[in-house]
Amino acid sequence: MIKLFYSLGSCSLASHIALEEAGAPYEAVRTDVRKGDQRKPEYLALNPKGRVPALVTDQGVLTENVAILAWIAQAFPEARLAPTDPWGFAQAQAFNAYLAATVHVAHAHRHRGYRWADEETSFEDMRRKVPQTVGECFELIETELLKGPWVLGEQYSICDGYLFTMLMWATDRLKFDLSEN
Amino acid sequence: MIKLFYSLGSCSLASHIALEEAGAPYEAVRTDVRKGDQRKPEYLALNPKGRVPALVTDQGVLTENVAILAWIAQAFPEARLAPTDPWGFAQAQAFNAYLAATVHVAHAHRHRGYRWADEETSFEDMRRKVPQTVGECFELIETELLKGPWVLGEQYSICDGYLFTMLMWATDRLKFDLSEN
Repeated sequence: MIKLFYSLGSCSLASHIALEEAGAPYEAVRTDVRKGDQRKPEYLALNPKGRVPALVTDQGVLTENVAILAWIAQAFPEARLAPTDPWGFAQAQAFNAYLAATVHVAHAHRHRGYRWADEETSFEDMRRKVPQTVGECFELIETELLKGPWVLGEQYSICDGYLFTMLMWATDRLKFDLSEN
Repeated sequence: MIKLFYSLGSCSLASHIALEEAGAPYEAVRTDVRKGDQRKPEYLALNPKGRVPALVTDQGVLTENVAILAWIAQAFPEARLAPTDPWGFAQAQAFNAYLAATVHVAHAHRHRGYRWADEETSFEDMRRKVPQTVGECFELIETELLKGPWVLGEQYSICDGYLFTMLMWATDRLKFDLSEN
């Protein structure tokens, strides 16, 4: 049985959505990041990165949304969650890699500044800039990356649940007003 | 003909190495990031992200090392640059996603602080912390992620050239002393 270690409101939602859409048999195991569950020895033994999501299968442990989403799409092909030709698949990976390495990182400077700096003044500086940096990401996504109606075009994919997660952070936490667009 | 838009010393080296290892027919097109070539209209028309690498093929433009490396491995299967089973492939993607979203991002706080903050004091604070954050990444890679002798074990893969690139930044720019390990 697949187990997904997730935290409410975290980026693990992207993998959670994909498991649901794939119709995969799985158990969701809550990890409370606010309480520091991800730093407990039993969790670190499973995922030494101390982050969510982590996916446990009969074959081992898999981390990183970009990889988990790709695996879910390939392990449950009947759900058609990603293109199967190399070029189409690579385009899906490119979109998800942008979310992971740029959009998520831009968001993370709001409350995780301590990952990259030590001073409270730096954290405040980072926090102030987040609406701008995240806004620029969504501008690029909207004008250049989205094919529509779904991220990759006519077919819903592993990219859409991940984009939804990043967008939910923008509307819930940064109070982005989508009606402007 | 495949074209790789690269910049000397940048993370595009990872994709460059993979094209060589794949024996792919390609042309390397130099983009000088220090001169701002990546912000010129003709480059932005190709890659609106304004970053390298960008790979141009008959099928279109592909960005993000994580995606380019996956595509090269799948488009030139005889080079055996990535596992072909979904789980093994996902492990390769997980490793590369960690390099893109965590290790590269840790490095980038050395001279790209302006991406996430505005004050010079914040940039200095970020710069000071880079040896620690990058060091912690390599500690995790060394102790937990590397299977050895190559990243994924007995077989050289798309992960190794990417790791080499991130490690080169650590030794050349941060003066990490590998003999300690």
